[in-house]
Amino acid sequence: MRLVRFGERGSERPGLVDEAGGIRDTSDYVGTLDGANLDPDRLVELAAIDPETLPKVAEGVRLCKPIERIGKIVGVGPNYSDSARLAGFRMNPEPTLFLKSATSACGPNDPIEIPRLANRVDWGVELAVVIGRVAKYAGVEDAQRAIAGYCLANDITERNFQLQRGGQWTKGKSHDTFCPLGPWLVTPDELSDPDSVALWLDVNGERQQIGSTGEMIFKIPYLVSYVSRFMRLEPGDVILTGTLAGVGLSYDPPRFLKAGDRIRLGGSGLGEQENLCVAI
Amino acid sequence: MRLVRFGERGSERPGLVDEAGGIRDTSDYVGTLDGANLDPDRLVELAAIDPETLPKVAEGVRLCKPIERIGKIVGVGPNYSDSARLAGFRMNPEPTLFLKSATSACGPNDPIEIPRLANRVDWGVELAVVIGRVAKYAGVEDAQRAIAGYCLANDITERNFQLQRGGQWTKGKSHDTFCPLGPWLVTPDELSDPDSVALWLDVNGERQQIGSTGEMIFKIPYLVSYVSRFMRLEPGDVILTGTLAGVGLSYDPPRFLKAGDRIRLGGSGLGEQENLCVAI
Repeated sequence: MRLVRFGERGSERPGLVDEAGGIRDTSDYVGTLDGANLDPDRLVELAAIDPETLPKVAEGVRLCKPIERIGKIVGVGPNYSDSARLAGFRMNPEPTLFLKSATSACGPNDPIEIPRLANRVDWGVELAVVIGRVAKYAGVEDAQRAIAGYCLANDITERNFQLQRGGQWTKGKSHDTFCPLGPWLVTPDELSDPDSVALWLDVNGERQQIGSTGEMIFKIPYLVSYVSRFMRLEPGDVILTGTLAGVGLSYDPPRFLKAGDRIRLGGSGLGEQENLCVAI
Repeated sequence: MRLVRFGERGSERPGLVDEAGGIRDTSDYVGTLDGANLDPDRLVELAAIDPETLPKVAEGVRLCKPIERIGKIVGVGPNYSDSARLAGFRMNPEPTLFLKSATSACGPNDPIEIPRLANRVDWGVELAVVIGRVAKYAGVEDAQRAIAGYCLANDITERNFQLQRGGQWTKGKSHDTFCPLGPWLVTPDELSDPDSVALWLDVNGERQQIGSTGEMIFKIPYLVSYVSRFMRLEPGDVILTGTLAGVGLSYDPPRFLKAGDRIRLGGSGLGEQENLCVAI
């Protein structure tokens, strides 16, 4: 099942994608796609609805971030060895974790803001895990069962704010629109192998990142289990699983985003995002 | 005005503290103390109610964290020069920011969990700022107007998880119960000078921290303004403003919390917290 939220800001509605790729309105069955409705058992109920019986939504509608009221966004530092090496990050024997402000999440095709005084805004295509059940000290199997689904994400970072402004990554990770999510929340039955998702990212039509989640050092259920040792995971929380080689910081000279740039990214089975960078 | 939430988990209600120190139930006027009800204009309406007309709440009721559905908890690194120096942290020319998981918040007298494998759990009495209006690139005056109120906080940290487990502070800051808040949300009219709040913290009856918010390097409205350059602040967000000298890490040998320890802390005008440390 591919779940979406659609509509303009302030009037978002829940929906799903039918076989033909059209969007169907699920408002009659679920108030919104937030933590309270992400329990995998609840999602099975939604999956039992025949999409053909649901109202069709007009084409071209805005897609929103697929989860409302995100509790927290946990990022995982270097998790692809090539990416870490090229960007000059040291690999740790265990995952590096950071938090992005939940307010950084936005829709998959929303404009991306270049913050004031920013000149090193970087991209990072990732697979995101969406939590559907509480997990605390979860073993790997319970961690797997806590997953509501997956979505495409772009972990955007201002590298100066991240690395030169006082020691923690938070400042570079949390600006509004620094975490486009979607287009879809893809349930585990639909994404049979999250460990072999092909990911790619282009800036202005030029390929910057390409790879596969198969290259991850720390695998998905382990990451969920690991995070749950340090903080309670709740339905509606999101874990970003790390990005591939090819972030702007890793090029010589480095490449960064500026107003007017267009980003496209995709993941096999996860859909695509397209964003215009804008000054604010 | 001193606002509270009270009651057992799952049946919390909003209230306020009357002149005699008793709790009055404000459920008839406000659904809950969450972001939607923290706008300073909304709080003025609450302040207009005569507490004597509100139902009295039985003494000894459990107090909860005074804000429901906290969006994010932004921590400020070393912000008292003595504290930074004694704990071995380098002072930055601008504030160090970090995020604590919002799930770390708990009531002012709730038990504090010592995480599994933890042996360096540290304390930190702080003044917390609660946001009542959206702030993004807010100047200092707008930042001041965005403040709904203040509360007492304990920024608890597992120092190994913070410093030895992969480079970001997140892991040591985010465990459940690592951010007791309250007892009260004190509105600005009630706390006339947040820059001269006396703060103290005892462990097992022994004074560990004592000082005043007057010693802060970066002052409150500046901190709110500063954070808002890096992330949108929303009603229900919390900013921890840094702790005083006397954290456990700064002693030689260092002192850390263990199951059975009792913590008491207080702030002039902000009330007191008392917590028992428990193994999980």
